[in-house]
Amino acid sequence: MMDFLEEPIPGVGTYDDFNTIDWVREKSRDRDRHREITNKSKESTWALIHSVSDAFSGWLLMLLIGLLSGSLAGLIDISAHWMTDLKEGICTEGFWFNHEHCCWNSEHVTFEDRDKCPEWNSWSQLIISTDEGAFAYIVNYFMYVLWALLFAFLAVSLVKVFAPYACGSGIPEIKTILSGFIIRGYLGKWTLIIKTITLVLAVSSGLSLGKEGPLVHVACCCGNILCHCFNKYRKNEAKRREVLSAAAAAGVSVAFGAPIGGVLFSLEEVSYYFPLKTLWRSFFAALVAAFTLRSINPFGNSRLVLFYVEFHTPWHLFELVPFILLGIFGGLWGALFIRTNIAWCRKRKTTQLGKYPVIEVLVVTAITAILAFPNEYTRMSTSELISELFNDCGLLDSSKLCDYENRFNTSKGGELPDRPAGVGVYSAMWQLALTLILKIVITIFTFGMKIPSGLFIPSMAVGAIAGRLLGVGMEQLAYYHHDWAIFNSWCSQGADCITPGLYAMVGAAACLGGVTRMTVSLVVIMFELTGGLEYIVPLMAAAMTSKWVADALGREGIYDAHIRLNGYPFLEAKEEFAHKTLAMDVMKPRRNDPLLTVLTQDSMTVEDVETVISETTYSGFPVVVSRESQRLVGFVLRRDLIISIENARKKQDGVVSTSIIYFTEHSPPMPPYTPPTLKLRNILDLSPFTVTDLTPMEIVVDIFRKLGLRQCLVTHNGRLLGIITKKDVLKHIAQMANQDPDSILFN
Amino acid sequence: MMDFLEEPIPGVGTYDDFNTIDWVREKSRDRDRHREITNKSKESTWALIHSVSDAFSGWLLMLLIGLLSGSLAGLIDISAHWMTDLKEGICTEGFWFNHEHCCWNSEHVTFEDRDKCPEWNSWSQLIISTDEGAFAYIVNYFMYVLWALLFAFLAVSLVKVFAPYACGSGIPEIKTILSGFIIRGYLGKWTLIIKTITLVLAVSSGLSLGKEGPLVHVACCCGNILCHCFNKYRKNEAKRREVLSAAAAAGVSVAFGAPIGGVLFSLEEVSYYFPLKTLWRSFFAALVAAFTLRSINPFGNSRLVLFYVEFHTPWHLFELVPFILLGIFGGLWGALFIRTNIAWCRKRKTTQLGKYPVIEVLVVTAITAILAFPNEYTRMSTSELISELFNDCGLLDSSKLCDYENRFNTSKGGELPDRPAGVGVYSAMWQLALTLILKIVITIFTFGMKIPSGLFIPSMAVGAIAGRLLGVGMEQLAYYHHDWAIFNSWCSQGADCITPGLYAMVGAAACLGGVTRMTVSLVVIMFELTGGLEYIVPLMAAAMTSKWVADALGREGIYDAHIRLNGYPFLEAKEEFAHKTLAMDVMKPRRNDPLLTVLTQDSMTVEDVETVISETTYSGFPVVVSRESQRLVGFVLRRDLIISIENARKKQDGVVSTSIIYFTEHSPPMPPYTPPTLKLRNILDLSPFTVTDLTPMEIVVDIFRKLGLRQCLVTHNGRLLGIITKKDVLKHIAQMANQDPDSILFN
Repeated sequence: MMDFLEEPIPGVGTYDDFNTIDWVREKSRDRDRHREITNKSKESTWALIHSVSDAFSGWLLMLLIGLLSGSLAGLIDISAHWMTDLKEGICTEGFWFNHEHCCWNSEHVTFEDRDKCPEWNSWSQLIISTDEGAFAYIVNYFMYVLWALLFAFLAVSLVKVFAPYACGSGIPEIKTILSGFIIRGYLGKWTLIIKTITLVLAVSSGLSLGKEGPLVHVACCCGNILCHCFNKYRKNEAKRREVLSAAAAAGVSVAFGAPIGGVLFSLEEVSYYFPLKTLWRSFFAALVAAFTLRSINPFGNSRLVLFYVEFHTPWHLFELVPFILLGIFGGLWGALFIRTNIAWCRKRKTTQLGKYPVIEVLVVTAITAILAFPNEYTRMSTSELISELFNDCGLLDSSKLCDYENRFNTSKGGELPDRPAGVGVYSAMWQLALTLILKIVITIFTFGMKIPSGLFIPSMAVGAIAGRLLGVGMEQLAYYHHDWAIFNSWCSQGADCITPGLYAMVGAAACLGGVTRMTVSLVVIMFELTGGLEYIVPLMAAAMTSKWVADALGREGIYDAHIRLNGYPFLEAKEEFAHKTLAMDVMKPRRNDPLLTVLTQDSMTVEDVETVISETTYSGFPVVVSRESQRLVGFVLRRDLIISIENARKKQDGVVSTSIIYFTEHSPPMPPYTPPTLKLRNILDLSPFTVTDLTPMEIVVDIFRKLGLRQCLVTHNGRLLGIITKKDVLKHIAQMANQDPDSILFN
Repeated sequence: MMDFLEEPIPGVGTYDDFNTIDWVREKSRDRDRHREITNKSKESTWALIHSVSDAFSGWLLMLLIGLLSGSLAGLIDISAHWMTDLKEGICTEGFWFNHEHCCWNSEHVTFEDRDKCPEWNSWSQLIISTDEGAFAYIVNYFMYVLWALLFAFLAVSLVKVFAPYACGSGIPEIKTILSGFIIRGYLGKWTLIIKTITLVLAVSSGLSLGKEGPLVHVACCCGNILCHCFNKYRKNEAKRREVLSAAAAAGVSVAFGAPIGGVLFSLEEVSYYFPLKTLWRSFFAALVAAFTLRSINPFGNSRLVLFYVEFHTPWHLFELVPFILLGIFGGLWGALFIRTNIAWCRKRKTTQLGKYPVIEVLVVTAITAILAFPNEYTRMSTSELISELFNDCGLLDSSKLCDYENRFNTSKGGELPDRPAGVGVYSAMWQLALTLILKIVITIFTFGMKIPSGLFIPSMAVGAIAGRLLGVGMEQLAYYHHDWAIFNSWCSQGADCITPGLYAMVGAAACLGGVTRMTVSLVVIMFELTGGLEYIVPLMAAAMTSKWVADALGREGIYDAHIRLNGYPFLEAKEEFAHKTLAMDVMKPRRNDPLLTVLTQDSMTVEDVETVISETTYSGFPVVVSRESQRLVGFVLRRDLIISIENARKKQDGVVSTSIIYFTEHSPPMPPYTPPTLKLRNILDLSPFTVTDLTPMEIVVDIFRKLGLRQCLVTHNGRLLGIITKKDVLKHIAQMANQDPDSILFN
């Protein structure tokens, strides 16, 4: 145990960029650290305080992450709201008011026309002093497109110049990082700043994207940056990943106002190593974040949730049929979206297209803006649209979607019976159908561009539109044909049978499920939006159908597909490895290859080792008793070896090229006049993982996943035979799935 | 791969009672099975149907578990309600009505006296035709105690005679079973039947116990029994445990009407191996169970939850102080309860006391009943009590707890300002204080007796009483001293500042948390009871404080303490192993012991092997190339070896004692006139897990936990040195924690 007392050489035990961490080693190091602090704590009061503060630093960190990500989410919400309205006009009372706040402060506003007040000026009013007529329309149209282009241009330029990692939703990369990969700067302060700013710009530009996914990235950046304030987390890659899991939960928590859903999302979708302690801490972080956001109150309704809905009518068992239809639609949309989006992204990667990100963004923004302006449902921000679609029509709703005939003619107070659709509803249906087509097409081209872009909101919008269309259709069917067998048992004339808003919600869940393949977390997020256990069954039926349908058409969710597209070394924990190959089929060296490169424990010189290092690129070498016996002693990492030899040559007197390197516990007595030896047992991993050559690969994959290994040695009857690295495992899985094994790029 | 085509010998690959399963082997077997079905499915339509039905059988099983456990929970609720009322009287309209139903059907009932109707006769009315006077009181008292004794006697006798496993809450044993231990009959049909019946009896007898914990056992029995209908789950111990995890979720779901909380409970508290697929299925089972229970509607209020509460007033930040005080109380109660209860249970195990379970139950029941009858809060069932304590006083509440002065004198409609307490409240406070003491004392002696008994309800009752007392105290303080600095900023005169019901709820959460050390699942269950995110922060503050306080006084929760008391081989997944020992310190043989018993791969005769088997009791033997080299080939299980040799002697022509046993792939050509050889490669595990002798035990423990190993071989520089079994690991952990290592009883 002497080795632990030696002064560590700086750099030993750290990782290079784009490398995979060794979970076992990291966790061991943290336990050593913890043990040391605990032992010291008995010595002095100061050490005791240090020990207690160390124990509570995790909770403090969670609190800070919650506060910071909640505040940032509030800031983003407020700015995006203001800038979205800026495309349409400006408040003369103060340019910093958005449309809603501008008219709240106004005295000249009537209840029916809450949206119109003299303080709010559209661009045509400002420029040509009128809001009527074709020319004013054209001015507004022009300004709308202009602002959209300006925002998009700013967003893409900032990303390109300052922080290329700030683009996309970030969830595929976060999944990869959490699984143990290192991408330096991906969660750094520049990424945080630029992503926050460009997210607001991108959302405001009216593109078909959401801010929910990127908020997870923002929260993870907060978590990573705050980790630097605590020794415990700064220096340990495994502990830091626990914090990042919790930060991801906080991100979803503020995105939807759903803390429990956030924790389950982190557990189900993004996390890799999720011990129970992290569960509890994630929950704390998610709650703090949610309450911070609520006290900022960006939506002005003191609600925690983005789309607060309250339904009044229970659903009927027969309605499961349309709900399942929505599930099928969601699954189909999910599969279609993933396939086309990946094809388009692959084209971007492989052709000239990828070289002009700014032009691409501007073109897509221009098309989106030009097509969006004429239709009020595409012109409004997507989250407003979803909110309106989820809404159950009340007596006082002035929305076109609630323009039923005889709306004010209800006999009973409060309750709204089913009614024939009015002119407004019919025209809204047409507009929604057009919106649906536009969103479906444009989202495929939007997701993956070099700006921050989330998928949750566009997917939900597609589902909500489809759901609302179906819901209104069902409602009219029930109204006009309440004598049909399927209706007459439960839906009498003049009763309120069908809630189109619930259909929209179910549709949104189905589409989101189809794209992301979330299950429990999806249902729980939706449950937290409504707060009623009643509606879990419809949501679940739709989410399950959607997942089954989408899985039948393609196994991967959008995040996994993007991970594969980018070649990240991510070992999926959900998929079972189903092939009957053995460790010997995967290990290196393959048959007919030269023998495995090994070091011997007591017979190689510094020069020999340096030759091995320079001639190979392996990230580590097994150490054996002797080449003849091939009996394994341990494993040494290339990086540690290089650093140690360099260090020895610099500092240790007399270590020369002919010095012998010892990995044994005691170096034997040397004859006189030989150069001093170099003892490197302290960098030797004495407990390398081994499997036999006949171990089925399914077990090997399981070991890699569960223990978070970087490499594993293969033995046959006690002799060292080969090595399997995580990359080999990933390549083998890709090969077995008939994919290109060389697409896995990194170590 | 020829081995897989051979006809398997019956019995090979099964387990003895009180043995630990090998998760890796079980999961491998399931994957083989799955692969076989998938491959066959391409051959014929019938095989395809088989393959699809196999894939959906998991979902079908979940549906059945949900339906069955929901129905059983409904049945238990209804019967327990009726039998609890039977202690007080009987309905003349029909003896099968409970008090509430009896008076619902009555026409002679006024709104103020909902409880009294001529159809419901107390025992004194039936026997001496009056309900007034001291004699009637004594008759009722006597009948109450008599019924209680009768129920308790029936319960304990049924358990003793038919199903000894039906006693207790069952959760410690279920945790152990889920971690991979085999206890035959623990989840069998007799246990199910007897537990269901005796649970009703035990609850009705008025003892201080709940039905929530046992409901988890009942649901797991349902799960286990239903597994027998599906080949996939009947034959595979690992797959069956996935189902049991889901069943546990369904159990909690019906116990509290909290499906999400149930799933998290299963994840956090009871499960060992919980893949994401199980998460999704558990959720489904929990939902089905909850909705089945709701459609049975045992509480007659069409609510899903046991204690439905709705609060109207938000809490104030200052109130966190009393909430944290409640957390401290909960933690102290938890630690005290665990310590005294375990001491009492140990006494029961080690002294004469344990030999007279019937007398013990009768004595405790008699004491409980005699002390309980005079006090209305102990006389009512504990869940009714909790329900009343949680309740926020409304305008029309007739409960003594709501007997405030000027109750009907409120100026504003609906809102109830803080009021001075009336006579009823003061007397209720005294009675509640007495109830608190009784519950605290009697629960310690009740939990662990030979009847089904859960801890959730008594713990919650203790906390709810303490909370309500504190809450009313705070309320009166705020009413009389609203000018105090701590109140005057937020609590003006005549306003409704403090909700005593919320304090009760927070107290209940704190006490439950102190006893069980649940965290997230506890908060989520409580959240599902109220449905308001508002109250999560108080609940969480109390649960966190309670856990910290209780952990400071003793690391183990009640279930873990009972697992240790009973010596079950349970490897706790939550606790980190913090000691700096190595694999060589734990492995057998120890220094100075005789060498490890091994088999050689090609030089031992049947007789040699039989001698080894008869001379040792090890459950498995490593197979090596030769004794000299000690190079490891594989591992063979004792049970498989015995069965195979017996089978060969019976069936295989000419296998005699001098036959040589081969574990190699090809048996070498034998000289003529030697007896035929016995080839046993098919029972050899060719991929045994190995670690080096210098591997830190913390890593070994991690491997055992994460991979679910039964044993692991230890090597030094490629030579086999020893073996570590799960039992060795558990003994070592016990030793390091200064506990008796021999308390771990089973293999």
